[in-house]
Amino acid sequence: MKIGFIGLGQMGSAMAANLLKAGHTVTVFNRRPERRAPLVKLGAHEASVVADASQGDVVITMLADDTAVGDVVFATDGLLANLPKNAIHISMSTISVALSKRLALAHLEAGQRYLAAPVFGRPDMAAAAKLFIIAAGESATIDACMPIFDSLGQKTSRIGAEPFAANLVKLSGNFLLAAAIEALGEAIALVGKAGIDRRAYVDLLTSTIFTAPAYRTYGSLIAAGSFEPAGFAAPLGFKDIQLGLAAAESLRVPMPLASLLRDRFLTLFAQGGNKLDWSAIGGLAAQDAGEHHAGSAPFVSSTG
Amino acid sequence: MKIGFIGLGQMGSAMAANLLKAGHTVTVFNRRPERRAPLVKLGAHEASVVADASQGDVVITMLADDTAVGDVVFATDGLLANLPKNAIHISMSTISVALSKRLALAHLEAGQRYLAAPVFGRPDMAAAAKLFIIAAGESATIDACMPIFDSLGQKTSRIGAEPFAANLVKLSGNFLLAAAIEALGEAIALVGKAGIDRRAYVDLLTSTIFTAPAYRTYGSLIAAGSFEPAGFAAPLGFKDIQLGLAAAESLRVPMPLASLLRDRFLTLFAQGGNKLDWSAIGGLAAQDAGEHHAGSAPFVSSTG
Amino acid sequence: MKIGFIGLGQMGSAMAANLLKAGHTVTVFNRRPERRAPLVKLGAHEASVVADASQGDVVITMLADDTAVGDVVFATDGLLANLPKNAIHISMSTISVALSKRLALAHLEAGQRYLAAPVFGRPDMAAAAKLFIIAAGESATIDACMPIFDSLGQKTSRIGAEPFAANLVKLSGNFLLAAAIEALGEAIALVGKAGIDRRAYVDLLTSTIFTAPAYRTYGSLIAAGSFEPAGFAAPLGFKDIQLGLAAAESLRVPMPLASLLRDRFLTLFAQGGNKLDWSAIGGLAAQDAGEHHAGSAPFVSSTG
Amino acid sequence: MKIGFIGLGQMGSAMAANLLKAGHTVTVFNRRPERRAPLVKLGAHEASVVADASQGDVVITMLADDTAVGDVVFATDGLLANLPKNAIHISMSTISVALSKRLALAHLEAGQRYLAAPVFGRPDMAAAAKLFIIAAGESATIDACMPIFDSLGQKTSRIGAEPFAANLVKLSGNFLLAAAIEALGEAIALVGKAGIDRRAYVDLLTSTIFTAPAYRTYGSLIAAGSFEPAGFAAPLGFKDIQLGLAAAESLRVPMPLASLLRDRFLTLFAQGGNKLDWSAIGGLAAQDAGEHHAGSAPFVSSTG
Repeated sequence: MKIGFIGLGQMGSAMAANLLKAGHTVTVFNRRPERRAPLVKLGAHEASVVADASQGDVVITMLADDTAVGDVVFATDGLLANLPKNAIHISMSTISVALSKRLALAHLEAGQRYLAAPVFGRPDMAAAAKLFIIAAGESATIDACMPIFDSLGQKTSRIGAEPFAANLVKLSGNFLLAAAIEALGEAIALVGKAGIDRRAYVDLLTSTIFTAPAYRTYGSLIAAGSFEPAGFAAPLGFKDIQLGLAAAESLRVPMPLASLLRDRFLTLFAQGGNKLDWSAIGGLAAQDAGEHHAGSAPFVSSTG
Repeated sequence: MKIGFIGLGQMGSAMAANLLKAGHTVTVFNRRPERRAPLVKLGAHEASVVADASQGDVVITMLADDTAVGDVVFATDGLLANLPKNAIHISMSTISVALSKRLALAHLEAGQRYLAAPVFGRPDMAAAAKLFIIAAGESATIDACMPIFDSLGQKTSRIGAEPFAANLVKLSGNFLLAAAIEALGEAIALVGKAGIDRRAYVDLLTSTIFTAPAYRTYGSLIAAGSFEPAGFAAPLGFKDIQLGLAAAESLRVPMPLASLLRDRFLTLFAQGGNKLDWSAIGGLAAQDAGEHHAGSAPFVSSTG
Repeated sequence: MKIGFIGLGQMGSAMAANLLKAGHTVTVFNRRPERRAPLVKLGAHEASVVADASQGDVVITMLADDTAVGDVVFATDGLLANLPKNAIHISMSTISVALSKRLALAHLEAGQRYLAAPVFGRPDMAAAAKLFIIAAGESATIDACMPIFDSLGQKTSRIGAEPFAANLVKLSGNFLLAAAIEALGEAIALVGKAGIDRRAYVDLLTSTIFTAPAYRTYGSLIAAGSFEPAGFAAPLGFKDIQLGLAAAESLRVPMPLASLLRDRFLTLFAQGGNKLDWSAIGGLAAQDAGEHHAGSAPFVSSTG
Repeated sequence: MKIGFIGLGQMGSAMAANLLKAGHTVTVFNRRPERRAPLVKLGAHEASVVADASQGDVVITMLADDTAVGDVVFATDGLLANLPKNAIHISMSTISVALSKRLALAHLEAGQRYLAAPVFGRPDMAAAAKLFIIAAGESATIDACMPIFDSLGQKTSRIGAEPFAANLVKLSGNFLLAAAIEALGEAIALVGKAGIDRRAYVDLLTSTIFTAPAYRTYGSLIAAGSFEPAGFAAPLGFKDIQLGLAAAESLRVPMPLASLLRDRFLTLFAQGGNKLDWSAIGGLAAQDAGEHHAGSAPFVSSTG
């Protein structure tokens, strides 16, 4: 397929490379030209403006946030203005439910097709084509995109015909991960202050009742107090909790645990933790408990 | 080994049966004689008073709570008064840190040995000898008890020489499970009110980033709104959160998420949910959101 | 003075009437003409467009929210475009810190003067010229406006030279009131479920340690479970908590009690309480406690 | 009247002195003899054991906590064993609902009378006979004690025939005060971080919508960050929140704001604030916000 790919961050670059590897014709765009070069070396065509990356059968956007996606799509010479009739925009970024609904409407009115297909997985999983893809939109459109999804992930889950559903599921997933971080943070603060070895505790948990990789990954980081370099930066995690709370507010769904997480992120930022991994909110319980082990304080990035 | 076994609830009965199956000589006691009979049929000796079950190399207690354990151990003619010098009391019940410390001291002064070895696992795992055992106490004593643990569980994890550590780890584990229930409850309330199929959502989560059995089990119950019959009754879950908070209070560790869970249990009980599974606290977020799908309301046990 | 007055709701109408009573020349505007008529009867000039009310020495806006103020000020033929050089815009509405900063900048660039002067007080206090006015902006400008403030309120407090400070103080004040409502709601749920007479309890409190009118007003409403008609509608209260949280988020100030209040409002709205007085959030604690006394449930407005 | 007075702390000493001033015959007891001496100088009889202070028409206990009251009342040669038939025990300490119920039953069975009459007011109010007294118990018994109450306080409020009601009201009152402290702490953190003068802010609030003395007292302490010496020590405040939560737990009343306060106290203690005034929990919001103004940190008592 002829694919446009817009957004070459850590995730996007790895994904575009996998599309090339799978034999697709890919035209890449990123505002910063130096991010395009490595993909061109792998065989991609280079677009120097959004319009040039908007001509394929399918255009994928993988951008940082609502603002970036809105700029790319709604600019005068942006994606919406250039995407051919019937072509497909797959929005794989983590964006708000509100923007996803707006995109669905705009593409419909323009005679274009639209899927939301955000992903679970860190950059290493993107590189290994092991992402989990959550796809929502018209069934036939998803069918048409399956060769793309198969090149990017280990599994594609469908969650209905309305694209926003995939975005909400993605946001809820990051909420669940942040909730696990908070829970681990409190549990580790408790056993740690009681004199139990934090790392042995995490090993015990994750070899018995909490075998999920998330518990192992975040439990180890919290036990070690090691929040740099950031695998997923705290401000990005905060953004997702905010978007989840905004969706919940529209729907009138009180989420007290999400509110607690929001406050944790604010505390982290107030104390200088903007550059840390989002699991650093899991160190705040120990700090409140007056613990000053290696990792719990101070929350000031050494590089910040 | 010659083993006394005190406490023949769902868990204890299954465990005692596995000890018999493994060839141990087991004397069983329960206050209610009708609970002893099935074990006697399997080859157990029957004790009609605690003292008669306190004569082995090892005596295991598997009782409901602090009060039950305290009664059995500290009664005038109880376990402490009858256990031979150097014999081992393995406390496998989920009890408070404070009681575990008191037991350790009392047995030490009486020239007896003491281990705390609480377990993770529901009755079906106990029956299948698939429990996870968390053992703490003197290393040589744990070594001596390994044949017993191997007859009861799939894995025994050691967490230090002070018995109370095992109790705290057990309590923290139940806190983590309840936290996962709350998080799932909020997430399911959110996506459900947005019109996404709850069961499909849980399937998606548990086949991608949350493969841990706990997420599958509790997610399914919450999505279905099916909280009866109770696999683990809400009042027992509440007790463990209380014990965790009590330990945290002694140690001066604030745990806001545990406080939230405590309030959830109180709300559940205030609304008649005493007979439900503890995962019913995961239905309260939907109720707050004004959702009245099959499972979310009313929280009144049909048998209560 | 020659005064323009824009926004003739319950509060604005009473305030404009007091300005007339004090002898000022007042030109009034409201989008709905029928709201202007009573003031015209009292001697006001009627403006049929914003521009006609923007010609005085001072123009006061007293509108519902950010959107209304933004529309009036920034419209092509709006206040900003029509206010004479050096004339003063006094924004008395409860608006966001962000909008207040934007207004300050816009008026500065236009060579106009700007004060923020939000008020504490319900419509009856506005009618009696008993408002508490919180004024911020250049000292000389406040001095110039004192005759106006003296016609409207019982006391004008200055809180610095940056106008946004007055808006933040106003928002923080409404947060404090909502916090008192929540605290009263929990306390009344507690004593009420214990069998103590709720009204006697509120009388006791407010005649001893909590003599502030807010405790008397809201305590009585909660004890009686009487949340209609709304003196201050719940959606307005919610808006102010949201604006407070937004300001706190920008400043990186975690406010867990404000987060709790936000969740309470969402619960209230999810259960149909949109038309109730904001003190209805003080009935939710009793509802969580399973109490169904006269006032605590259901949260469905009889007029809604 | 012939009055026994047991418990000569700051509060009790001032109260006993006022009884003497009013012409009553008072026999005082405190475990530490040096606390009795000043009262003896004022005309009191000295009791060297509890029994000697238990012989009057009325015996008042004003002690630190449940343990102290339990010891005095239930000891072999304690108050219960020595109080004459039909004589009255007025428990003025802040104690648990559970203990108050136990006292009511024990005195009933012993043919004695019992009132609960806890007070609102700091030591300076006790000295000025300006306490607010909350009395519960049989109406005729309260009538009989009115001359005593009139010597101690400015107002006596009756709250029913069951003594525990007065204790619950007292606990709820301290919850409301702590809630006001938390709310003020968050509001002051917000406006303070925005650059608004904290003291001016508190002056503004307490001269407009929050004229209650509690807001003035605690607002000033928080704005100044001045938490020493303690007027009411944090551990005493924490005890009352715990007793309130315990009562709420028995009654199945979730109180999320009380849970938040509990966590705040634990954080304060974990950081060394045990010797501070309880209003120091109002400094934690500023600390979470990364503010290090004079008063907000560190929470280490200079005398601790």
